[in-house]
Amino acid sequence: MGHDVKPVVEYIRTLQQQFIERLLTVDSALVFQGEKQESARGVSKPRVAEGGDHFDKVAVQFTHSIGQRLPPAATERKPELANTPFQAVAISWIFHPKNPYVPTTHGNLRFFIAGEQGREQWWFGGGFDLTPYYGFESDAIHWHTQAKKACVPFGANLYPQFKKQCDDYFYLPHRQETRGVGGLFFEDWNTGDFDSDFAMVRSVGDHFIPAFFPIFEKRHTMPFGEREQHHQEIRRGRYVEFNLLYDRGTKYGLQSGRRVESVLASMPAVSRWTYHYTPPEGSPEAKLQQFLVARDWLV
Amino acid sequence: MGHDVKPVVEYIRTLQQQFIERLLTVDSALVFQGEKQESARGVSKPRVAEGGDHFDKVAVQFTHSIGQRLPPAATERKPELANTPFQAVAISWIFHPKNPYVPTTHGNLRFFIAGEQGREQWWFGGGFDLTPYYGFESDAIHWHTQAKKACVPFGANLYPQFKKQCDDYFYLPHRQETRGVGGLFFEDWNTGDFDSDFAMVRSVGDHFIPAFFPIFEKRHTMPFGEREQHHQEIRRGRYVEFNLLYDRGTKYGLQSGRRVESVLASMPAVSRWTYHYTPPEGSPEAKLQQFLVARDWLV
Repeated sequence: MGHDVKPVVEYIRTLQQQFIERLLTVDSALVFQGEKQESARGVSKPRVAEGGDHFDKVAVQFTHSIGQRLPPAATERKPELANTPFQAVAISWIFHPKNPYVPTTHGNLRFFIAGEQGREQWWFGGGFDLTPYYGFESDAIHWHTQAKKACVPFGANLYPQFKKQCDDYFYLPHRQETRGVGGLFFEDWNTGDFDSDFAMVRSVGDHFIPAFFPIFEKRHTMPFGEREQHHQEIRRGRYVEFNLLYDRGTKYGLQSGRRVESVLASMPAVSRWTYHYTPPEGSPEAKLQQFLVARDWLV
Repeated sequence: MGHDVKPVVEYIRTLQQQFIERLLTVDSALVFQGEKQESARGVSKPRVAEGGDHFDKVAVQFTHSIGQRLPPAATERKPELANTPFQAVAISWIFHPKNPYVPTTHGNLRFFIAGEQGREQWWFGGGFDLTPYYGFESDAIHWHTQAKKACVPFGANLYPQFKKQCDDYFYLPHRQETRGVGGLFFEDWNTGDFDSDFAMVRSVGDHFIPAFFPIFEKRHTMPFGEREQHHQEIRRGRYVEFNLLYDRGTKYGLQSGRRVESVLASMPAVSRWTYHYTPPEGSPEAKLQQFLVARDWLV
């Protein structure tokens, strides 16, 4: 056996609860909208909050989908599974902080099981990534140290592989820019050992709080003004460009007729486009893009 | 003959100048950035201004491209022309007003000629459309009256055809929303009579100022506050969604490696995404989407 959905659902619901509790610990002004939607097609529990003291917008969304026909979009690499019965369990989260010195962060974990009874296939996917507005080397090193720690028990190759996949994925070809400092990204993960793979996924989920919140704690009291905010809004424009032009989750979500508000809950509150935005040479804003160029943070 | 590029270039450059002069007449605070780029591959003259008294952002861009290989994206419907020599002459414009009672407006006109020498094909494309934040029936009627007037000398069927194509094009399937009240939209236009087709295109270009500016004059002094501005920012988010998810010009521009800043000069200055934005029932903001549903404005 070894591909029971129940423990995955339990873990992912618990993780959603942990993230929300942690957010409320640091920002008690956050009020989560918590409509729960339940049907024969599954359970969806988006939790979105806006206008906190320290976060403009956060979304932590849980879905458990049960269907008779796996959408072709989910099976490009497994065409034999198209239109077979399936279950998908997923959490996705995004935190858009108020203070421009605190990076935006995003992540998701998902489990699929699909196929005719007795011949099911399963796989995991997910990861987390960090999008700073200002480059702090110590933050990027801390982030990647945690990302690596999450992976190490499951093989020495995992972190470099997932890290590279993350750099490759969060890239804006039209600008030739990386979106942030990356993190972890994996897809179609199935080593044949469900228990070990599920443990790896839990390890990634469990390392998110220790990866992100120390950075938040360090940066969220830094004073900022209009200049930093303007820069943040411009960079959020890049985030919007990435999500609408390239992000597969967003694309498939919109194409497959999922609730638009859930799919686009990842969008920043405010984004700005300024023609030829060029921060003064040598300014921290101007140095950002160079800082973000993909590199090995842990040498 | 009948497919000389020169008069098209002249007309379109003059139109660019006219639009800019008209904008400066009503908003002398606009400062246009005017870098001109000239090479063997053609001339491009983007003119973009931000932070005027009455416009947050306007872009009026002229390009004349000369190439040895027509990009496949431009020839989906004419595969025999892919990779043949071509010229393209185009103007595109977008005005993002400051006052939320003034609609955003956008348009473009373009001329293509492509093919091996002696066997060239040519065609026109373009149109203009209006995206109100608040529904004023008289504005939509005025707009469509001018749109129709532009078309009538060239056949009774033109306006209904171009109007429907505009409604079909400026539609957000993921939200099942029309973007605005439409206008005119045509592609691959070649009746076999260059002089008449070019005259039609000039007529569309010449009717833009009488279509838009009376609406601007009527609305730009209306008082507004935070509520209207918030609504405007949300609706500009829809504009961003349309441009990045669906607009073919934007897509091809980004894919073909055109200057990103020119392609994305159409983006609004500030856009906002609020989870489950639902204006109070019965408010003018709540009535907008119903107002925008495609209909015949000239009955």
